[in-house]
Amino acid sequence: MTSDTDPRFLRSREAILNAARQLLLDSGPTAVTHARVAERAGVGRATVYRHWPQAEPLLLEAMATVPMPFLAEPTVPTRAWLRRELEALARQLELDDVRAASTTLASTALWDEAMDARRARFAGILTDRLAGALDEAEARGEVTLSLASRNAAALTIGPLYYRSTIEHAPTDPTLIEAAIAALGTWTTSP
Amino acid sequence: MTSDTDPRFLRSREAILNAARQLLLDSGPTAVTHARVAERAGVGRATVYRHWPQAEPLLLEAMATVPMPFLAEPTVPTRAWLRRELEALARQLELDDVRAASTTLASTALWDEAMDARRARFAGILTDRLAGALDEAEARGEVTLSLASRNAAALTIGPLYYRSTIEHAPTDPTLIEAAIAALGTWTTSP
Repeated sequence: MTSDTDPRFLRSREAILNAARQLLLDSGPTAVTHARVAERAGVGRATVYRHWPQAEPLLLEAMATVPMPFLAEPTVPTRAWLRRELEALARQLELDDVRAASTTLASTALWDEAMDARRARFAGILTDRLAGALDEAEARGEVTLSLASRNAAALTIGPLYYRSTIEHAPTDPTLIEAAIAALGTWTTSP
Repeated sequence: MTSDTDPRFLRSREAILNAARQLLLDSGPTAVTHARVAERAGVGRATVYRHWPQAEPLLLEAMATVPMPFLAEPTVPTRAWLRRELEALARQLELDDVRAASTTLASTALWDEAMDARRARFAGILTDRLAGALDEAEARGEVTLSLASRNAAALTIGPLYYRSTIEHAPTDPTLIEAAIAALGTWTTSP
């Protein structure tokens, strides 16, 4: 009855996705539930379930349509900026919904091409942004990197991601400091 | 017809799990496929599918029954031992099956209590072993740790895990060296 080319089906899909994006921007990832999305989109809850039987893929899709907030717009000194960004990322990774979205992304990417493209885009943005900011910091003499700047995302975000998804525990500040220190020799004070 | 208390059902389950464990020990995680498990267990492929519709949970269950190989039996100097262990772990994380098993573990643990207990046990073993080895290294004067030893697993395994599951790329040796250096000040030569 419904299909990918049915205009009503496509319209409700778009309304749901818009509602999810608005909820995400207004109230954060925990707001992207079937009930709240249905209410905001002005459709029945069953319609939301028909398009997205589970909430994580809907959250992921909504996330993919909003600009990635992390590591955007670097400020100087780089070290202080990076600490603030990693602290914000660690706090997000403590939310169950963000944890669910990121682990769903990692596991679904292994057998779903569209999800894998999303994973690659997500990882690439973080790697590029951090490498760019660190290359500039090195050019300014703020840091002498001890490894290629494209390794920086794994070295700094990796511990936070492992702490959240494998250890299921909050990231403490010393873990972030140690990861930042591992990037190289900083000339700015901690 | 079959149920959790049917002796034939339980016997075939045990035979399949034994076969999966043997294949894992003999030939590594990529050998744990429905076809090879069925052949080794002497049951039909349909029987394997009935117990484990997907291969990852079967691999995870087989993994849970064999001793965790990583970070076991520390040797001195700790720094060289840790490098070897992290290199071995990085190579395992490059295998599609290990990637699938670890991301399945992380995502399924969010809504499945048994899987969450397995995740916690898995993470706890790695954290305990590494903390134990580093505490001994510090007592011997090999290292002055720059953070609590229970943060060491996230700081060193985290980058490898992120590189494998989010960046889908191999870990290069400089990433491992940087993570080891981040643990503190080492008195042993690199």
